[in-house]
Amino acid sequence: MDELIDTMNTGQLKNIIKTILIKHDLSNEHAKISTDALINAELVGAYGHGLARLKMYCDRIKKKVINPKPKIKIKKISNSISHIDADDSIGFVAADIAIKTAIKNAQKTGIGLVAVKNSGHYGLSGYYAEQAVKKKLVTMIYTNAPPAVAPHGSLKSLFGTNPICFGTPTGSKIPFILDTSISMINRGKIRVAARDNKKIPEGVALDKYGKPTTDAKKALLGVQLPIAGFRGSGLAWMVDILSGVLTGGNHSGRVKDPFDDFSGPQNIGHLFITFKTNLFVKDYNNRIKENIKRIKKLPKIKGVKEIVYPGQNKYKRLKMNSKNNIKISNSIKKDLEFLKN
Amino acid sequence: MDELIDTMNTGQLKNIIKTILIKHDLSNEHAKISTDALINAELVGAYGHGLARLKMYCDRIKKKVINPKPKIKIKKISNSISHIDADDSIGFVAADIAIKTAIKNAQKTGIGLVAVKNSGHYGLSGYYAEQAVKKKLVTMIYTNAPPAVAPHGSLKSLFGTNPICFGTPTGSKIPFILDTSISMINRGKIRVAARDNKKIPEGVALDKYGKPTTDAKKALLGVQLPIAGFRGSGLAWMVDILSGVLTGGNHSGRVKDPFDDFSGPQNIGHLFITFKTNLFVKDYNNRIKENIKRIKKLPKIKGVKEIVYPGQNKYKRLKMNSKNNIKISNSIKKDLEFLKN
Repeated sequence: MDELIDTMNTGQLKNIIKTILIKHDLSNEHAKISTDALINAELVGAYGHGLARLKMYCDRIKKKVINPKPKIKIKKISNSISHIDADDSIGFVAADIAIKTAIKNAQKTGIGLVAVKNSGHYGLSGYYAEQAVKKKLVTMIYTNAPPAVAPHGSLKSLFGTNPICFGTPTGSKIPFILDTSISMINRGKIRVAARDNKKIPEGVALDKYGKPTTDAKKALLGVQLPIAGFRGSGLAWMVDILSGVLTGGNHSGRVKDPFDDFSGPQNIGHLFITFKTNLFVKDYNNRIKENIKRIKKLPKIKGVKEIVYPGQNKYKRLKMNSKNNIKISNSIKKDLEFLKN
Repeated sequence: MDELIDTMNTGQLKNIIKTILIKHDLSNEHAKISTDALINAELVGAYGHGLARLKMYCDRIKKKVINPKPKIKIKKISNSISHIDADDSIGFVAADIAIKTAIKNAQKTGIGLVAVKNSGHYGLSGYYAEQAVKKKLVTMIYTNAPPAVAPHGSLKSLFGTNPICFGTPTGSKIPFILDTSISMINRGKIRVAARDNKKIPEGVALDKYGKPTTDAKKALLGVQLPIAGFRGSGLAWMVDILSGVLTGGNHSGRVKDPFDDFSGPQNIGHLFITFKTNLFVKDYNNRIKENIKRIKKLPKIKGVKEIVYPGQNKYKRLKMNSKNNIKISNSIKKDLEFLKN
């Protein structure tokens, strides 16, 4: 981030954001859902998914490519399966309805499958996974995103950073939430670096000519590299199919960049799978507790204090950051001032 | 492979293998299922999952840690969900019943979820995915495996190579089958290299002291590296939970190495998810055809002739190899001679 010129009380900041979103025609309820998601991203340290995006959302509403008053349709396919047409809503709202539907379906039948089309960027998949895990469900979540990663063998970005998300209860208060992009680096992080004139690590991106770069702005115009070559590329392709081809959403590179392309709605697709933990075993919580315990007890590489499971560090950051005011960078401060008035 | 001293007609070889398995107390039907899976692995070039394992399976039957006459129980949880207790059957048979059950469930309700416990190594996940895809279903398959990959931060192997498998129809005769281990290299390949005194690539494994090695035998005693560090480790952990903790199978490093540990059955767990392609869109085949077409048309890196989707090369190998006799290495020849008599 650029210079931190201010901090703000979380409650106070929430009020400001909510007011801004209501001023941009969101309903009270939708503004609250969106605000909570944005603040959560700040608190877990996922700045690329937090306040750095607020102005973009407002811009898209102004340009009529996000619909602030969507008529979201939930089509029941079966007691387990639902299809949601989000009517170009802000992504947070579509995803919130979708995960709640997936939870309800799984509670009713053991398994839930919910597809969403005509949605937008919804922030962190893990945020929605947490909702399902709190209801004692296992969940798998897929979403596509604007082109950022080149398919293996290609010189041009087409896949999004297409996260793979998996969550499960752990029998303890800290959930297991794997939320991993299939690119070497999160696009939001490159965006924050570009905005704040910081460099990005080597080996994570190419510029638009296919050359390695550490310049965040050049990387945004170029190509992000997938993890593990053909394997990561295949995983990204899988996510594009599950969240785009299957759902009725955009796919194969057609999701528009929310910051740069106001020529139409994004029509992002999401897929939510949920199921009960105790379908096949009676003692799931004990089993997973034992699983984690055994792995944590392994001999560690020199310098490693603890083997952590996915979601553990994020949970710690959330707890710690929740005690303090939220730090506001210069550019965020400017955005808030501009959007308020 | 070591020196290729012979080739054999596929039908003739199938008869030999089937006879060997029947001699080891498998039923005619189970011997056929297992033979087909082993031959398929040879034909697609996945030698680590093919005939190199035949003697191991027979050894495990002799030592009574694979049950040649299993009483496999299929418990119906709902019209979508089933739980299979494979009674320590050879993995091929358990997986064959499981995918067929998952197909039936999805055809009935739109979605199928089938968990298996008390199973063993079943060869290639993609082989079962193909069955579902032929029935016009999307499928996701997870299985765990003996310790081979160290969790991120740890010095000791615990996760298996835990493949992530995803299959979908493509609207053409070549299915999209992603079947990717989360380790840098497939354990079967290391085993074949060790057997044939070949080196393995750099950067894929550590020896038992935590040092990088290209010696396949040392690598088998050491640690395989996961793809993409923490991310790959998280994906392996996810697979261990989905296929082990959830199903009632072994997990957290308790799956025995089938070659080295005859102290009991493996109790491997598998999870099969299947769903219809047309739940949310009417024109899935056209959509995925367009998806693949757009990606194939991207500008290519110099030297790349074609951007291929997962499963495409395997399909080509299968077609090509099916025209010819199967090559038999010296060590396989010895195994066959030994097992026949």
